[in-house]
Formats: sequence, structure tokens, C-alpha cells
Amino acid sequence: MAMQGEPPKPDWQRIAQAKRQSVVDKIPASWRLSEADRPSPSTLPNVIEHITQFLTPHELQITNATPRKILENVHSLNWSSVEVTAAFCHRAALAHQLTKCLVEIRFDEARQQAEDLDAYIRESGRPAGPLHGLPVSLKDRFHIRGLESCCGYVSWLGDHKTENDEGVLVHRLRHAGAILYAKTNIPMSMLIGETTNNIIGSTINPFNRNLSAGGACGGEGALIAMGGSPIGWGTDIAGSIRIPSSFNNLFGLRPSYGRMSASGLATTLPGLPTGGTVIGPMCGDLPSLTMMTKWFINAKTWQDDYEVIDMPWNEERWTNTRSRICQEGQSNGSLVFAVMMGDEAVWPHPSVRRALVTLIGALKQRGYEVITWNPPPHSEAADIFFRILGSTAGHAIREAVNASGETPIPQIEDLFNTASDPSPTSDFWELCEQRERFRTAYHRYWKSTQNLTASRRPVDGVILPTAAHAAAPEQSFTYFAYSAVPSMLDFTTGTVPVTFADPELDRMFMDDPPRPFRSPKDEINYELYQNNTSAGSPVGIQVMGQRLQEEKVLAMMEAVKAALDEYDPLAPQ
Amino acid sequence: MAMQGEPPKPDWQRIAQAKRQSVVDKIPASWRLSEADRPSPSTLPNVIEHITQFLTPHELQITNATPRKILENVHSLNWSSVEVTAAFCHRAALAHQLTKCLVEIRFDEARQQAEDLDAYIRESGRPAGPLHGLPVSLKDRFHIRGLESCCGYVSWLGDHKTENDEGVLVHRLRHAGAILYAKTNIPMSMLIGETTNNIIGSTINPFNRNLSAGGACGGEGALIAMGGSPIGWGTDIAGSIRIPSSFNNLFGLRPSYGRMSASGLATTLPGLPTGGTVIGPMCGDLPSLTMMTKWFINAKTWQDDYEVIDMPWNEERWTNTRSRICQEGQSNGSLVFAVMMGDEAVWPHPSVRRALVTLIGALKQRGYEVITWNPPPHSEAADIFFRILGSTAGHAIREAVNASGETPIPQIEDLFNTASDPSPTSDFWELCEQRERFRTAYHRYWKSTQNLTASRRPVDGVILPTAAHAAAPEQSFTYFAYSAVPSMLDFTTGTVPVTFADPELDRMFMDDPPRPFRSPKDEINYELYQNNTSAGSPVGIQVMGQRLQEEKVLAMMEAVKAALDEYDPLAPQ
Repeated sequence: MAMQGEPPKPDWQRIAQAKRQSVVDKIPASWRLSEADRPSPSTLPNVIEHITQFLTPHELQITNATPRKILENVHSLNWSSVEVTAAFCHRAALAHQLTKCLVEIRFDEARQQAEDLDAYIRESGRPAGPLHGLPVSLKDRFHIRGLESCCGYVSWLGDHKTENDEGVLVHRLRHAGAILYAKTNIPMSMLIGETTNNIIGSTINPFNRNLSAGGACGGEGALIAMGGSPIGWGTDIAGSIRIPSSFNNLFGLRPSYGRMSASGLATTLPGLPTGGTVIGPMCGDLPSLTMMTKWFINAKTWQDDYEVIDMPWNEERWTNTRSRICQEGQSNGSLVFAVMMGDEAVWPHPSVRRALVTLIGALKQRGYEVITWNPPPHSEAADIFFRILGSTAGHAIREAVNASGETPIPQIEDLFNTASDPSPTSDFWELCEQRERFRTAYHRYWKSTQNLTASRRPVDGVILPTAAHAAAPEQSFTYFAYSAVPSMLDFTTGTVPVTFADPELDRMFMDDPPRPFRSPKDEINYELYQNNTSAGSPVGIQVMGQRLQEEKVLAMMEAVKAALDEYDPLAPQ
Repeated sequence: MAMQGEPPKPDWQRIAQAKRQSVVDKIPASWRLSEADRPSPSTLPNVIEHITQFLTPHELQITNATPRKILENVHSLNWSSVEVTAAFCHRAALAHQLTKCLVEIRFDEARQQAEDLDAYIRESGRPAGPLHGLPVSLKDRFHIRGLESCCGYVSWLGDHKTENDEGVLVHRLRHAGAILYAKTNIPMSMLIGETTNNIIGSTINPFNRNLSAGGACGGEGALIAMGGSPIGWGTDIAGSIRIPSSFNNLFGLRPSYGRMSASGLATTLPGLPTGGTVIGPMCGDLPSLTMMTKWFINAKTWQDDYEVIDMPWNEERWTNTRSRICQEGQSNGSLVFAVMMGDEAVWPHPSVRRALVTLIGALKQRGYEVITWNPPPHSEAADIFFRILGSTAGHAIREAVNASGETPIPQIEDLFNTASDPSPTSDFWELCEQRERFRTAYHRYWKSTQNLTASRRPVDGVILPTAAHAAAPEQSFTYFAYSAVPSMLDFTTGTVPVTFADPELDRMFMDDPPRPFRSPKDEINYELYQNNTSAGSPVGIQVMGQRLQEEKVLAMMEAVKAALDEYDPLAPQ
């Protein structure tokens, strides 16, 4: 905390600027875009295709391949690790210049590692590990030796991490032969649904650069969507993996606490005694997401991280769930889904409702039973959850901001304008008790759905919005309950891309007849839609299972994707 | 909290007396002991044999049988449920009159249930469930419909629980055919290592009634040791299962959090956000303890309790650990143990050290590798743990005591004499962070033992004292670190009986040469020994595994017991 009477620290702008410049300086000159090739967002909102013109056909072939395909080609000596790494470094550098998605670049170290891997496989005839030669990007919170983990705080710059700071994921990735070539941008505070700070600035959405990439893993979202990374890892405490995955057309997984090691992370919620942050993968290819999840769950990380439950990947559960994916004309024993169109407080935008209605149509056409999800109220529960996270009044966040004297980003100004005293521990325990009651009630409701389904089984998975809107302009993301409630429940939850916001198509899903607002936040969200700003944004949804059901949720995501892929909206129902 | 200016409530003595009397009134007249048959503790300290004279040979045959034997006899129609239930009710009633171990009696309901079970098995030819006809006792904290759960608080009397209050264990026990015939005494606050309150009074140790039965499950400990229950269930937050198990010659299991449903319990730590209380079985027979554990872990309780991890009993892990129990002359691949003779703050009594030295001898003779355990300091960690539990300044405990105006028991007077304000939540999070650091350091130390063993594997289990002394007179139990540290680590930990305190034998283990005291508490503990009061008390030790290793710990307890059973101290080493 800055002491009273201390002089202001005018240097923070200079330090931030130097860091910002150092990232650009690490991009080879030949990969830098001219002014003309970097049109403004208003001139060229969507840069998904734009980026491809700066890459060779071979670079495109590599960077458009799925992680599984990349591994196949590298392990069969079809592609060298060096060429794969160079292609992704190049595309990541381009993505950064168009969306500001990176914060740490280590292209040189990556090239060195790739050379070593190439030598190894040539000499030994076999890959150095299961991820040999696969570039993997990481959110800035993961410590990597030699790099900073500034996490959007100027005061944290200059602290270069050592091998001792690295967590289990980084160790295991390196040991498995993955190439760590970049870390991605996150917002100051790490706790908002957008990605902005005073150092790198705002990570913008590659599908419409007038919109935010979402957050807190917005850097990962934009980078992977731009093809600058085949697969990445983020962290999630209330939606940080799922929001940017949904806003960037990606699959993302929020596992349950204890299933994957989350060690070696920077944090401003130290000691939070409620099983807070989890880590999870983000990727455009679902089978690769599953492959990565299975690999890490099977990496015996419980031996190196106290918090991890010794619970290996359950192949039988995965196979069993997959066997319940509806095949043409056969739906016996198939998965049962529930869908929540919206909660009691904030009604989602027409784009989101269209995604859900589309999905319901696809699932029903395929033969699944789909029921309506009417759980205990989400919005009150989310309030409790955020009061739990805020019980120390953001003490460590204030400290990290104030230490440099930098200006807080507008999204966390409230924190700086409100009471600074932590609540008494008895209040905190009372909040935790309320959370327990909600979890118990929710769990009971889930079980009770066995009385509501035709099959007399409880639902297998719940489909719900990731947010009350698609990607939006910065400073619009204010309602977190859709992603926060699965976090509060610690339920395994993945995202699946469904569609893109389209004012023409969405119009059909306007409120009809006009409705009263459910809450002040509902009105704000409605106004956001009236401005019609989300055009072109991807719309993803969440598939929620119960606790520690990673295998089942990944298989259900497959079911959802298959239903969408095969959906014929014009077929007779 | 009693309001200021409110008049004193002189009625609490009358209410407590009425409850105390009502327990006795539920004992049939023919089962009541005369004054002469209830000699004072100083006249007859040990009543383990004394009780048997009041039972018929058939009652003795039944009540001396192990739970597995009882089930075998009832399921083969050799014994009726009615006769088994009556025998245990009788013996429990006698045990209560000699040790004050009960707080709730439901002999009539038990008899009714037994009659129903007998009718069922006669008609259907098969048992109603796997525990058909087995009497099971429960600590007072478990809610049972129709009974109170006063937990040593006068103010909680009068609140008769309903079926809705019952937790998963009670439901499953009843469904499996177990007979719930009594609940056992616990201390006011539920948080001390002895068992006393203003309602029932003090539960005393049946091996030496001048000593406490231990706590908080002292009622269970005394009842099972007296043969008044074949098997019982307790709860454990810092040693409450393990202390009375060790002080009453029993096997007890503290599972890791989430392995067994702990729903339906009375509590004065509501909302404690740190995974506090676990439940576990206590029994004189290890195979029956394992049978009961396996039954409950396999009862799919995760479907009914959010907190339970869906992790069925891993038979392979159990079998695999058992296959590493040393056989005569063959020790290849066998289990590796570490032993902690004492921690850095309070050196255990000679009786405890003799138990450990005996066990080391037994294990080595059998062929096991045994190394010394030098973990991160226990006593500081236990301090952090108790500060976590005390972060709300015992708010709910004060409230429960003050609501009736009763006098706090001396063991919790400190709580009433110290500050009453809960700490700020930021302090609480800081304590939780310290706990996390301790867990990480401990976990790392455990793994590092692979560099210390001949086999190059980390140790499988750690043997340590349950307490710094054997059973002691009331108001002597002040140092909890030995049992609290496994709780803080959430490590699966069981107790195994080893020996009995014997001043003659223990003398060999006196400090030699005289040593400086390690702490003020060490001096207090030493003085306790100088008074030589624990003669005849059972001495058990803890076998500690890692998190969620119930199968492995039970198998290691078997290894320890087998080594002790076969030990020949005179054989050449």
C-alpha cells in the first residue's frame, strides 16, 4: 500500500511503455507489419482472414493444423520442430500486432528447444515425449523461468522468475516436449471479463476488433483464434477460460478443483481458502482438447502437488458417455440434457438465445431428450460468490496497483472507491455456509430431475449461456453469474462454439412480447443489445457436468458438437 | 449470546439433571446396577472384566463377537436380530452405569427394528441389507429422528430431530439393516481431547476410571471398549476419533475429507471453509473396520452429498498394499515405514515411546525398512491450525453455552476469558496461506524420502504418537499437535493399539540422560508423567498415509498389527 505523504510515482508510464516496446522488439523485423497492414479496428474489424496473407502456404498448412495433426507430422519426421515453431512464432507475432494478445515472447529459447528436439528425434528415432514439438501458449499467470509474470501490474515488472517458481504444468509440458514460446495478456486484477491493463493495453477480438476478446484469458482467446497457437492453457476462477473461449470460437475446459495441478501461478488472492483457481486448456479442436486433458490428468501430478487428487483419467467413463451419443435413428439410453435459456436476473441477448434454440433443435433432431433447467436462483448465489472473493476488500490487488502509482483500469475503479476494510472472519464463514447451502440445494435439484425425465434418469449435462451477451465493447462486461455459478459449484464445465452474432438472424429472437426488466442489470444488458455492437462475435455455450466429471463433460461436448454439425434446421421435426 | 441485563437462568441445572435422569430411566430396571455393583473408580479402576459378570454366557458370546462374526451368525439365522440387539442394549446400559458413555438411548425402537428384520429374513430367506442386524453406535453429533443432539449444550436440549435432519450415513446404515440403538457422550464444545459436559458429566476410561476416556468421541471409545457396541462412528476435526481410539485399545480411521459423507451433523463451527470435520469408524476388530469403511465408500453417497468425491473403494490398491506386507523371510518390495518418536515441542511420555520402540522392533524383525521421520515442525503448524479453527473466536460455542446460562467446562474457560472479536478475513486468509505452505512443504518432504530409503521409494506410511501421553486424568489434555497435524494435512490416518502404560516397563524409557525441556508445554507434560497416573491405559499409535489413501492406510494398519502380533522381543536381531 502506498504510504500517505509519499511522492507520486510518475515513472510507471515509462516502465509500462518500456515493457510494451520490449515485446515488439522481440519480433524479428521481417515479421513486423507496416502501418498499412495494420488497419484500424473500425476500418477492418475482422482480421481472421487478413492475417493469412502474411504467411507462406507451408506456414499456413502448419498453423492451420490441429495439435493432433501437428504431433503426427512432427513425430513422423514430416515436419521438423524448428519449422513448426517458427511458423507459430511468426503467426503469433502477427496476431499480437493486430490484437495485442501477447505479453511475453521467448522465440529464441523456443527455437533452441526445437533444434534440440529435432536432433533428439533424428538420433533416437523416437519423440522425446508425447508432446514432442507441439507449441503451447500460456496465460501470463504461469511462471516460466527467465520471464516476468506481471499480470497487468506495473509494480510486478522486473521480477524475473526462476525454475523454482515454475509449477507442475510448466515442468510437465517441457518434459513432454512441448515448446513454450509465448505468454498471453491478461487484465489488471485478473478478475474481469475483459483483458486490459496499462502495460500492453487491451486485447481486442479478432472477429470484430471493436469488441473485447473477453477475459481474463483474452490473450489466449485472441491468439488461438488467430492461429497463433494450436492450444493454450488458462486459469479460471469465475469464467476466465470460458468467457474468452466462447467469445473466440474455441473449446475450453474448466475442470473441477483438484483434478489438475494449479501450482506455480501468480495470484492476488493469496490464501483464498475456498478452492478458487483452476487451470484448463483452450483449443479450436475438441479431440485435441481431450487429448491434452487426458495427458495432464494422467501425469501423476499428485506426487508433486498436494492439492491434486490421485484420480487418473477414467477411460471407461469417457467411453461409456460417448457410447450414449445419439446415432442416427437410435436414441436408447442416450444422454439427457437440460437447457437454461436464462436466469432470473439478466435475460441473455438474442444472439445467445438463438444459439441455445439452435442447439435445442439440433439435440432434439438427433434424438436426445432435452428438458428445461430450473435450478435454485443463480444471481443471488453469484453475489455470495463474489462477496467471498471480495472478503479481503481486494487488499493484495490494491497493493499491487498502488505499489507503482499506476491508474487503476476503469473496470476495477469501484474497488478503489469502496470500503477498504476486510470483513470479520465470522462474516466470511457465514458466506461460506451460504455457499454450502446453495451447493447442497443445487445438487439436490440435479438429482431430483430423475422425476422429470422420460428416462427416469437425472440429466447428464446442463447447457447454459456463458455470458448474457456475445463479445462486447470494453467496459460492458458487468454480469458474471452465468460463468460464476459453475465455479461456485465447482462443476466441471466446458464451452462449445455454436454460432456468430448476426443482427439479421438475431432479430427473430427479440423479446416478443415486450417484457418487464428482471433487474437493473437486465436493463443495462438490454441497452447493450440495442446498440447492436456484437455483430460477428462468436457465441459459445457452456456444457456443465457435476464435480470431477472431466471425462463425461468432454464426451458430452462431443455430443453437442456432433449434433450441431449434423443439424438440418429445415428437416421435419 | 445472552443479552446484558438479562436475569441469570438458574434452570439449566434442572434441565441438565432431567436429561441425565431420562437416560437412566430408559434402562430397564433389571439392567440397573446396585450401588455395590458400581464401585467407585478409586476402588475399582478397571471395569473391563467387571462388566462381564452381569451378562449371561450367551450375551457374552454375542457381545464379544466381532461385527463380521455377528453378521455371519445373524445372516445364517444362527442368532436372531432381537437377541443380538438385546445383548448389546444390555451391555451398553451396564457400560453407561460404569463410565457415563451414553447420551441417547433408543432400545425400544431398536427392538422393534430387530423384530422387523427377523421377520424379513425368515420370510424372504435373505438379509435386508449387508449390515442386517448389526448394532451400530453413533457419536451424539449424528442426528437421528426423534432424538436430540445436545452435544453437551444444555441450550440444545429439547430440539428433537426429524428425518430431514438425518445425514447420509444414518440413512444408509438404516437402509443396510444396521440397528441404531444409542448415541454416545461428547464434550461441551466438541473440540477437546476429553469428554465432559454439564448434562451427562464425564465419560471415564474403562481401563482405569481415574482417567479420561479421551475425546471428543470418548463416549464411543468407552462404550466399544466395554463391549457395549461392536462398532461405532465418530467425527474428527483434530483427533476426536484417534485420541479415544488410542486411549481405549481400538482401531479408528480418520479418512480424508470428501471420501465419506459427513452430512447431518450438529456443529458449532458452521461454514468453516477449510474442509474441517470428517467422520470415521471405530472398532476393536480391524477387518471389521475395513469392511465398514469399504461398505460406506462404496455406497455411492456422492449422489446425495455434494461434498463427497465420486471415488469408489479401490480394491486393487488395497490388495496391492497387502501384497507388500512382509512374509516370513521375504521382504522384497515390502512396505517402507518412517517413525516419528516425538516432535520438536513436546516429548511423549515413556509409555508412548515404549510403544514406538516396540513397534520399530516388531517391524524390523519382520523385515520392513524403517527410517526416522524428520518433517517440517509440527507444533507451529498445529498452532496455525487452531488459530484457523478459532478465527471466529468460538462465536457459535459461546452462543450455545450462554443461551442456557450454564457454566463453561474448565477446559474451555480460556475461550470465555479471551477476546471475543473475530479476526479480519485477511488474517484468516493469511493463516490459510500458511497452512498451504506447510502442506506443500510436508508433501515435498514426504516425496524426498525416496532419497533416504534403501529401496529408493518414498515411505509408504508414517508411524507417530496419537498424543504426548496415554489416557490421563481430566483437564490434562493440552497438547494436540500429534493428532492435529494429520488433520491439517488431511492425510488418511488410522490408529492401532500397541500396549498398555506400565510404570515398571516404562521406566526403561525415562529420559536418559536428563534433557532440557523443549517448551513450557513439554515441562507440563513431563510433570504429568511424574505423577504416574496413566497406569493401565491403552497406548495406541497413528499410521498416517497421504490424502485419500484409505485403502492403503487400512492395509498398512494390518501390516503393523501383524508385526506386533508376531513380535518376539527376545529373538536375535
